Amino acid sequence: MADTMTSTSDALGDQMLDMGKRARAASTALAKTNAETRTAGLKAMAAALKAATPALLEANAKDMAGGQTKGLSPAMLDRLALDEPRIEAIAAALLDIAALPDPVGSEIARWTVPSGLDIARVRTPLGVIGIIYEARPNVTADAAALCIRSGNAVILRAGSESLNSAKIIAEALRAGLTSVGLPEDAIQLVQTTDRAAVGHMLTGLNTTIDVIVPRGGISLLKRVQEEARIPVIGHLEGLCHIYVDAKADPQKAVDITVNSKMRRTGICGAAETLLIDSAVAGTLLPAIASALTDAGCTLRGDTRARSLVPNMSAATEEDWHTEYLDAILSVRVVDGANAALAHIAQYGTGHTEAIITEDEDTANRFLAEVDAGIVMVNASTQYADGGEFGMGAEIGIATGRIHARGPVGAEQLTIFKYVVRGTGQTRP
Amino acid sequence: MADTMTSTSDALGDQMLDMGKRARAASTALAKTNAETRTAGLKAMAAALKAATPALLEANAKDMAGGQTKGLSPAMLDRLALDEPRIEAIAAALLDIAALPDPVGSEIARWTVPSGLDIARVRTPLGVIGIIYEARPNVTADAAALCIRSGNAVILRAGSESLNSAKIIAEALRAGLTSVGLPEDAIQLVQTTDRAAVGHMLTGLNTTIDVIVPRGGISLLKRVQEEARIPVIGHLEGLCHIYVDAKADPQKAVDITVNSKMRRTGICGAAETLLIDSAVAGTLLPAIASALTDAGCTLRGDTRARSLVPNMSAATEEDWHTEYLDAILSVRVVDGANAALAHIAQYGTGHTEAIITEDEDTANRFLAEVDAGIVMVNASTQYADGGEFGMGAEIGIATGRIHARGPVGAEQLTIFKYVVRGTGQTRP
Repeated sequence: MADTMTSTSDALGDQMLDMGKRARAASTALAKTNAETRTAGLKAMAAALKAATPALLEANAKDMAGGQTKGLSPAMLDRLALDEPRIEAIAAALLDIAALPDPVGSEIARWTVPSGLDIARVRTPLGVIGIIYEARPNVTADAAALCIRSGNAVILRAGSESLNSAKIIAEALRAGLTSVGLPEDAIQLVQTTDRAAVGHMLTGLNTTIDVIVPRGGISLLKRVQEEARIPVIGHLEGLCHIYVDAKADPQKAVDITVNSKMRRTGICGAAETLLIDSAVAGTLLPAIASALTDAGCTLRGDTRARSLVPNMSAATEEDWHTEYLDAILSVRVVDGANAALAHIAQYGTGHTEAIITEDEDTANRFLAEVDAGIVMVNASTQYADGGEFGMGAEIGIATGRIHARGPVGAEQLTIFKYVVRGTGQTRP
Repeated sequence: MADTMTSTSDALGDQMLDMGKRARAASTALAKTNAETRTAGLKAMAAALKAATPALLEANAKDMAGGQTKGLSPAMLDRLALDEPRIEAIAAALLDIAALPDPVGSEIARWTVPSGLDIARVRTPLGVIGIIYEARPNVTADAAALCIRSGNAVILRAGSESLNSAKIIAEALRAGLTSVGLPEDAIQLVQTTDRAAVGHMLTGLNTTIDVIVPRGGISLLKRVQEEARIPVIGHLEGLCHIYVDAKADPQKAVDITVNSKMRRTGICGAAETLLIDSAVAGTLLPAIASALTDAGCTLRGDTRARSLVPNMSAATEEDWHTEYLDAILSVRVVDGANAALAHIAQYGTGHTEAIITEDEDTANRFLAEVDAGIVMVNASTQYADGGEFGMGAEIGIATGRIHARGPVGAEQLTIFKYVVRGTGQTRP
C-alpha cells in the first residue's frame, strides 16, 4: 500500500475522477429516459426542495454568518440570503423548467437523399456538463434543472460562500431524482472549497466532462481561459453599448438609454457606454444626460461630450473597458455609424449591443456588422434575457462564438446526431 | 534593440501572432461582404488554381521527391501526388463549393414575443478557423473554400510532406480572393514545417483563432487534446460497427456488411467491427464471412465466431480498439441488442454505427441509444459523407459532442446571433 505517499491533492483528484465516472454513467442512463420521466423528476425536485426548507434555512444561516465574518458587501450578502419566499421562488422556477418543452429527441430537420436514405438531424444531450459558479444559491437549483430538462448529467461547483446552502439544495434535488427512478448522480455537487477541484474540472476529469459552463467574475473567467482543456460555453462580461444614431427618434433615445442603464444596474444586460452621433449630440445629449442624472446616474464623458454637458466627469481609457454594474455610464460622441461600429468592435464583449435609429439602412447595417450574441434596434438592452426571448430559463448569456450564443437555455445544452434510415442501401 | 536575445521560437511566435491579427482583420472584412462576392471569390480561386497548374506540378514534384527520400509508403505517395486531372478535380471541387447555398445571414428561426420585439436567430461566421491537417494537397483548397463559403478567415497548417504544393495552392487561392476585392489574408498558410507553429495555433494566438479543426492521425489528435486552449471541432478515428440483429434480413446483412467494409477500406466511414446476435450467428455468420473472404477481407473473431467460421484468426482486446483502414474486420458474437449497445458504447469513437434489422422497435432503440454523430439502420456505413447527406463538401466527420457533429460542411462552420427589432420598447 502506498497510501502514505498519496498527497491531499491526489486524493481530491481520485474523488473528482470518481465523480466524473458516476456522472458519465448517470448521463448514459438519463439519455435513455423519456421527456415525461424527466418532467416528473423536475417536479419531484421542486417538491423535495420545498420539503427541505427548514434544513436549507439552517444551512443558509451558516453561510450568512460566514459571509459576515468574511466581510462580504451588503449586496453580496443579500444575494446569498434565503428566506421562505425565496425558497418558494426557487421551487417555482423548477416547476417552470419542468413545463418547458423537452428538447431531447426533437427533429431539427429531416430530408430524403437520392439514394433513398431518410436522414434526420435529431437533438441529443451534450452529456456531462460542469458548471462553476459563484454566490447565489438559486443557481444550484436552476442550473441543475436546466441540465436535467436537456438530458444532461451535471457536476456543480458552487462558490465557497454558498456551499452550505448548495449542499442542502443538491441533496434535495438528488432525492427528487431518486423518487422517480432517475439516477441521483445526474446531479453532483463538489463538496469541498478546495480550489484545486476547479482545475480538475477544467481538464475534463479524463474526458468525463464534455463541456464547462463558467458563471462568475473576471478572475474565474481568466482561470478558465488559461486552464481549460475541454470546450467552454463562455459567459464573459456584458459591456453593452447604446448607439444613438443621427436618425434616432429623440424620445426613444431618452427612454431606451435610461431604461438600458437604470432599470437594473447589476445585470449583465445593463448598458455601460453611450455612443452618440456628433450630428445630433448637440440637441439630444443634454436631454439624455438630464434624464439619466434625474434617475440617479453618474456620467463620465469624453471631451466632446463634456463640452455639451459640463457636469460630467472625464472618462479615461479605462472607462471604455469597464462593466460598472452600477449607476455609472460612460459617454462618447462619435462621428457616425462607422465610428460607433469601430468603438463597439474594440471594446464590446460580444454580449448585447443596441442602436437607436429610424433609418432602416443604418439599422440593418448595425444588425449585420456588430459581432455579438444579441444585436438590437430601438429596444432596451435590458431585454437580453432568455425569459424575455420566450426561451424560458437560462444558465446565462453566452458571449463566445462556438456552439451557442446569447441566452443559454435547455435547447442550447443539446447537440444533434444524424439518424439515417435505409432499406438496404449499399454505396456504389 | 534586444534582437540578439530573441530565440527562433520567439520569432516564430511573433510571426504567428501577426498572422492571427491579419486573419482577424480579414475575418471582420469578410463578414461584411455578401454571398455574391464570396461566390465570385470562390470561382476566382478555382480559375487561379487552374492557371497555377505548371507551378503546382513543379512544387508537387519536389514534395514527391522528398516523400520518396523519407520513405513514405506507396499509398501515402499516391495521396500526395498531383497531375493535371487531379488539379482539374480540385478546381472543380472549388466550383462545387461556390455553388453551395451561402449560410451567412440566413434566418434559422424568427418569432415575436409578447413585448412586441421581433427576434431572429441568424447565422454568422465563426470568425477565424485554424485547420491542422496532413498529407493530401486537396485539403488546402477544400478547407479554405469551405471557410470562405461560410464567411470565415482561415489559417492553414499543412503537413510537411505536402508543404511545397500547399504553398502554391494557397498563393493561387489568395490571388483569386484579391482579384474580386476580397482580403487575401482570409486565407493564410503557415510557411514553416516547425512543429512549434501547431502549439501556437492550439493556444489560439492570443484569442485571434476562434476554433481549431484538426484532421490527422492519432498523434496529432493526442497533441490537440493535451495542448488546445481554444474550442476544437474534433475528428477522431472512425471505429464504425455493424450490428446484425436477430431480425436482420439475411441478404441485407451480407450486402451491407461487405459494402461497409470493402467498398473503400481506407475511409473513416468504413466498418471495422461486425457484431452479430448469437440467435442468428449460426446461420448468418458463415454466409457473411464467406462473402467477405471472397471480397478479399481477413477476419479476426472471438471464440464463438471462430467456432462457427474456423478459418478466422483470433481477435484480441486490441482488435476491438483498432481502426484497421484495411481489408481486415473483427467479428464478435453478442447476446442481443443490449450486448451490442454495450460493446459500441465501450469501443466506438462516436463516428458512425449501423444496425441491420427488420424489427422497428430494436431499430428505434439503437438509433436513440447509440451515442455517435451518425446512427444508421439498414444502410452501409460508407454513406457517412457530407455529399451523400446532401450537404455538399465537408471538412470531415466530427466525432465530438459540441457545436457540430457528423459531416462538417459550410453550415457547421457558422454560429448564430440574435437580431432583435423593436419599436422603442423599454423593459418594465
